Amino acid sequence: MKLLRVGAPGEERPAVRTEDGRLLDLSPVTSDIDGAFLASDGVDRARAEVAAGSLPELDPDGLRIGAPLARPGKIVCVGLNYRDHAAETGAAIPPRPVVFMKDPGTVIGPYDEVLIPRGSVKTDWEVELAVVIGRRARYLDGPEAARAVIAGYAISHDVSEREFQLEYSSQWDLGKSCETFNPLGPWLVTADEVGDPQDLGLHLSVNGVKRQEGHTSDMIFPVGHIVSYLSQYMVLEPGDVINTGTPAGVALGLPGTPYLRPGDSVELSVDGLGAQRQTFGQA
Amino acid sequence: MKLLRVGAPGEERPAVRTEDGRLLDLSPVTSDIDGAFLASDGVDRARAEVAAGSLPELDPDGLRIGAPLARPGKIVCVGLNYRDHAAETGAAIPPRPVVFMKDPGTVIGPYDEVLIPRGSVKTDWEVELAVVIGRRARYLDGPEAARAVIAGYAISHDVSEREFQLEYSSQWDLGKSCETFNPLGPWLVTADEVGDPQDLGLHLSVNGVKRQEGHTSDMIFPVGHIVSYLSQYMVLEPGDVINTGTPAGVALGLPGTPYLRPGDSVELSVDGLGAQRQTFGQA
Repeated sequence: MKLLRVGAPGEERPAVRTEDGRLLDLSPVTSDIDGAFLASDGVDRARAEVAAGSLPELDPDGLRIGAPLARPGKIVCVGLNYRDHAAETGAAIPPRPVVFMKDPGTVIGPYDEVLIPRGSVKTDWEVELAVVIGRRARYLDGPEAARAVIAGYAISHDVSEREFQLEYSSQWDLGKSCETFNPLGPWLVTADEVGDPQDLGLHLSVNGVKRQEGHTSDMIFPVGHIVSYLSQYMVLEPGDVINTGTPAGVALGLPGTPYLRPGDSVELSVDGLGAQRQTFGQA
Repeated sequence: MKLLRVGAPGEERPAVRTEDGRLLDLSPVTSDIDGAFLASDGVDRARAEVAAGSLPELDPDGLRIGAPLARPGKIVCVGLNYRDHAAETGAAIPPRPVVFMKDPGTVIGPYDEVLIPRGSVKTDWEVELAVVIGRRARYLDGPEAARAVIAGYAISHDVSEREFQLEYSSQWDLGKSCETFNPLGPWLVTADEVGDPQDLGLHLSVNGVKRQEGHTSDMIFPVGHIVSYLSQYMVLEPGDVINTGTPAGVALGLPGTPYLRPGDSVELSVDGLGAQRQTFGQA
């Protein structure tokens, strides 16, 4: 099932996209798609209402698509998690996941404008597979146990400012947490519909030029490992998001490739999860 | 004014502590002490009700004191921000603030039990001055402008697992985000009552042995600078918390000093902000 949120920023309403492309209003089931909805078997309740044909249809014309999840409690990121990306940045294959965080206030809709921060000359792109947590996870008993706590997946654009991230201090969060730096969606696709999360292609182009063409089979630490690993060190809560890393092809790894500038357009997609498109503006 | 939250975990009610030590119920003014309360001139409204003598008194007997703020949107931390602490860890004085983040779900009350993570052998203490943001801050015009966005201050215990933080990857967040790792409070003391945030002593002892004895005048980047600096790279929202760094005296910097073990007791205080006391348990 594909869950989404439609409407003006801050006023989104929950919705379901049916297999034949119709948009159904999920407001009779929940006021929002958030941790509380996911933790209370909201996905099953939504599925039952869709099957019963009881949800009113929405007119998609002119409706903005927001992030498919209300503001996450946290966004945990795994860095250097694709073999080809670790190689292009000159980093060794890390022996453990490299874990950092991103301000959860950076989440915006998949087609919203992304702002290049004032003073930035190294704003970069990163297509990623986002994991959305559906149940509380604490000291999970291995990658298999992770399955039960994953609600679904979405495309995440982990926009990154490389000077802020890598040159201002040893810690990366500053260059990951700028305003609008995490377009998410368009859909939260439930785990059952996605199937194997290690069998998904990721694609990103800038102004029509293909830049990233990766595959989740190239992850150093697969999704189940990441979720289980993180749960040994922090509590994952329903509605939390994990950005699982980006494949090769970012500006940082392509000498001579320009970083993003106002007016640039980025399109990205992950197999089965839809597509995003952002125009970049100036903060 | 001293704001606090009292009651069982997850069921705290807002309160005010008067200058003569009485506890007043703030429920007639707000349902909680959070970003929305701070952003809507809640402090002024609370002050008016206290002056009018209209708030009912609470019996403090047996009442748990929770964190003085509902779950923050984010916790931003500044590392190595005291000259003596940078020296003890062998780090150079950083040219810019070292910025990292902590899971906002780690916040607990000032007297709650802190859990030593499974597998941890390097759980360490850090007394810190926390800044609580009261108004949205974005591209502030310097340290003076920061004053207008600071609601107040609290004691923050930035508990840290050094192996997870420093040995598992280059990024520190993993060792900062363990369950229960951020006792906060007892009070959110409003900025007017605190006065100069660079004139506060910080104190911490473990099992009755004095370990940290610092002063905010030793900060490399003072509070106004930190808030203004962060606002150039991320949006600070009402209810966000900034941990401004710890002075010398942590176990990491004291060779031969044992890290924390179940049963250990830590007491910490910051001048004018009250005191905390935690017993450590095992996760």
